[in-house]
Amino acid sequence: MVTRHDAEALDAADPLAPFRDQFDLPEGMIYLDGNSLGPPPRTAHKRMDETMRREWGEGLITSWTGADWIGAPQRIGDKIAPLIGAKAGEVIVADSTSINVFKALGAACSLNRGRRKILTERGNFPTDGYMIEGFAGISNGAVAHSSVDPDDLLDALDEDTGVLLLTQVHYKTGRIWDMTETTARAHGAGALVIWDLSHSAGAIEVDLNGAGADFALGCGYKFLNGGPGAPAYLFAATRHQKKAQAVLSGWFGHRRPFDFTHAYEAAETVAKFQCGTPPIISLAALECGVDLMSRVDMKALRQKSMALGELFATLMDERCSAFGFRLVSPRDAKLRGAQISYAHDHGYEIMQALRAADIIGDFRAPDIMRFGMTPLYLRFSDIFDAVERIRDVMASGAWRRPEYAERRRVT
Amino acid sequence: MVTRHDAEALDAADPLAPFRDQFDLPEGMIYLDGNSLGPPPRTAHKRMDETMRREWGEGLITSWTGADWIGAPQRIGDKIAPLIGAKAGEVIVADSTSINVFKALGAACSLNRGRRKILTERGNFPTDGYMIEGFAGISNGAVAHSSVDPDDLLDALDEDTGVLLLTQVHYKTGRIWDMTETTARAHGAGALVIWDLSHSAGAIEVDLNGAGADFALGCGYKFLNGGPGAPAYLFAATRHQKKAQAVLSGWFGHRRPFDFTHAYEAAETVAKFQCGTPPIISLAALECGVDLMSRVDMKALRQKSMALGELFATLMDERCSAFGFRLVSPRDAKLRGAQISYAHDHGYEIMQALRAADIIGDFRAPDIMRFGMTPLYLRFSDIFDAVERIRDVMASGAWRRPEYAERRRVT
Repeated sequence: MVTRHDAEALDAADPLAPFRDQFDLPEGMIYLDGNSLGPPPRTAHKRMDETMRREWGEGLITSWTGADWIGAPQRIGDKIAPLIGAKAGEVIVADSTSINVFKALGAACSLNRGRRKILTERGNFPTDGYMIEGFAGISNGAVAHSSVDPDDLLDALDEDTGVLLLTQVHYKTGRIWDMTETTARAHGAGALVIWDLSHSAGAIEVDLNGAGADFALGCGYKFLNGGPGAPAYLFAATRHQKKAQAVLSGWFGHRRPFDFTHAYEAAETVAKFQCGTPPIISLAALECGVDLMSRVDMKALRQKSMALGELFATLMDERCSAFGFRLVSPRDAKLRGAQISYAHDHGYEIMQALRAADIIGDFRAPDIMRFGMTPLYLRFSDIFDAVERIRDVMASGAWRRPEYAERRRVT
Repeated sequence: MVTRHDAEALDAADPLAPFRDQFDLPEGMIYLDGNSLGPPPRTAHKRMDETMRREWGEGLITSWTGADWIGAPQRIGDKIAPLIGAKAGEVIVADSTSINVFKALGAACSLNRGRRKILTERGNFPTDGYMIEGFAGISNGAVAHSSVDPDDLLDALDEDTGVLLLTQVHYKTGRIWDMTETTARAHGAGALVIWDLSHSAGAIEVDLNGAGADFALGCGYKFLNGGPGAPAYLFAATRHQKKAQAVLSGWFGHRRPFDFTHAYEAAETVAKFQCGTPPIISLAALECGVDLMSRVDMKALRQKSMALGELFATLMDERCSAFGFRLVSPRDAKLRGAQISYAHDHGYEIMQALRAADIIGDFRAPDIMRFGMTPLYLRFSDIFDAVERIRDVMASGAWRRPEYAERRRVT
């Protein structure tokens, strides 16, 4: 049996342990939901104050140039680039993940006209499929949405498939698609590939250019710790930037937005995938999260994340096997991202009871309990304590209290 | 000749004068650019600190329900509604103005299928036209972009016009479209109308429902003082909400986003026009601006705004007539919004020189100098002092200094 002493020994040897001090986590809480919303880096408070008082309050309109607000989407994109195997000039921060799915679809389809099918995995994060539906709906028949089971996906790549859109790390199970192999298969079939990195960036090592990816996008508020509803980002491989169409052709994607020309002339760089005025206050918070992640050795981060997940799974096997949890993530840490998920018929109530016990994970309908394994602020001893509290909640029957069964919208 | 004493007398009688204390404006600066970026309300600093530390830092993921993050887009939309003549439940805060143009186009076109033409004014704010171009581009021939000179616009409404998109207050000249008459003409021709309120909301009295408008959208960072790049809003008349299509069909517009269903089922309310995860930090700042504006009598605000503009124009006539400024706004205050604009061949350099003299306005290519007349924090004596400094800059030739001619991107 693994003991708390074992977990403490792992903490003592942990090269990433000092990063925990970069966050203010509530006393006593074990936060296993960084896969849904990361906590604020300590630097973000000061930065926000500066943005609010000095940049907005004192600089006012002149801060667009004076505080380089105008450059923020590109500057932060360039900082995200090394986290996902991209080059400077290939990533822009803008809008939400959903909006960026739409832009990437427009860009990819514009490069592969004549092929009708946009293919995705059935069971992908819903907004990816919803955005494909919307895009297909206004294409007046030019493209159509096709989603198939993951096991059948690669075989469904046919001569009518223009674009394959996949989330690299599955939001429920944490299962990882092999980006290199999958991209190669899609290219072999003549399709372009869009990767949704929402659960990958800042969680696992990602190498977009190594895999030859065409487009990608992802979320700023999970592993990048950019704040609730933080702006998202979009990657466009250099080879596509000039020709790919920006279908959400707002003024910030114009080659010279402040010439106020009548006709839209897209920038020839990744800047064309900006649309409206960038959300400066949210960008300031995001930049703090990205700056912090930029200081981390991603190989060490991935190693620790796998080790945290391995410890969690081992402890669940040892201590909670009697309670009806079913592992839905791959058991092999190399095959899953920075989360581990279990199904349980009473998953919702149990997750509520755990929250009352200061173990914060989340629930995904109909029955999935997700636990984020985020190495920057989690200790091995936290994992030990979390599983102990799960055992307490189950063994005591605390989760059966009526208040935990009340259904509320949760994220 | 108007004297400073006259201006001071107007200040002494001004019922809106106390609102100036709600803002922290830099000492000595006269800020005539609230039409581009409003200053921070004093309440925004505390609110931001609370959002950062208590809601994000302590509440973390539980703040989606615990701090009602989930309800923010609708809650703030309901507060904007009375400022634009809408009802609660008709306005949602989301994304950028440009993105909301796209959504409104998709919604309006879905209700008027078979008509191909999306009509707008030539010289409208560029992003409106750019977004129409992008929308038409992916419609595969279903719709087309048509922009005509404002004088010819109403006559261009024909049996093929599905949608008319207009900005109520022109971004360069401040000229106001008659919303009631224009909407009626469009409806008479069988077209639906989308109003861009970016330069109207919080600036003039707007009555969307009184005019029978179909859709509208606008900007949070100008007269609503919501912060740089603040989220925008979208209005959908109640009668259209069930049937109009949400083409940017992200998960937050789903009827039950947290059921994670495979197929998109749009909400039947204005909530369908949300797309991705809402930007909570930016929304918190915006809400402070909207709350402040909600306390203002819009009739009194409009009266003062017209009086400020009238004073500015009178002083410019009296004191600056020798310097080559050409008024491009309507001379009649009732016909222009909360800004007054002049063309000058050296407008860029003059505006730079004015900024150096702490008079902050902005420049719009090729030759337009804009001055915002925002009653919540401007005094009549500020207007007097501003024109005096314009006279100084012109009479002294200070604007001819080489550093002011250096072209930079400006907003």
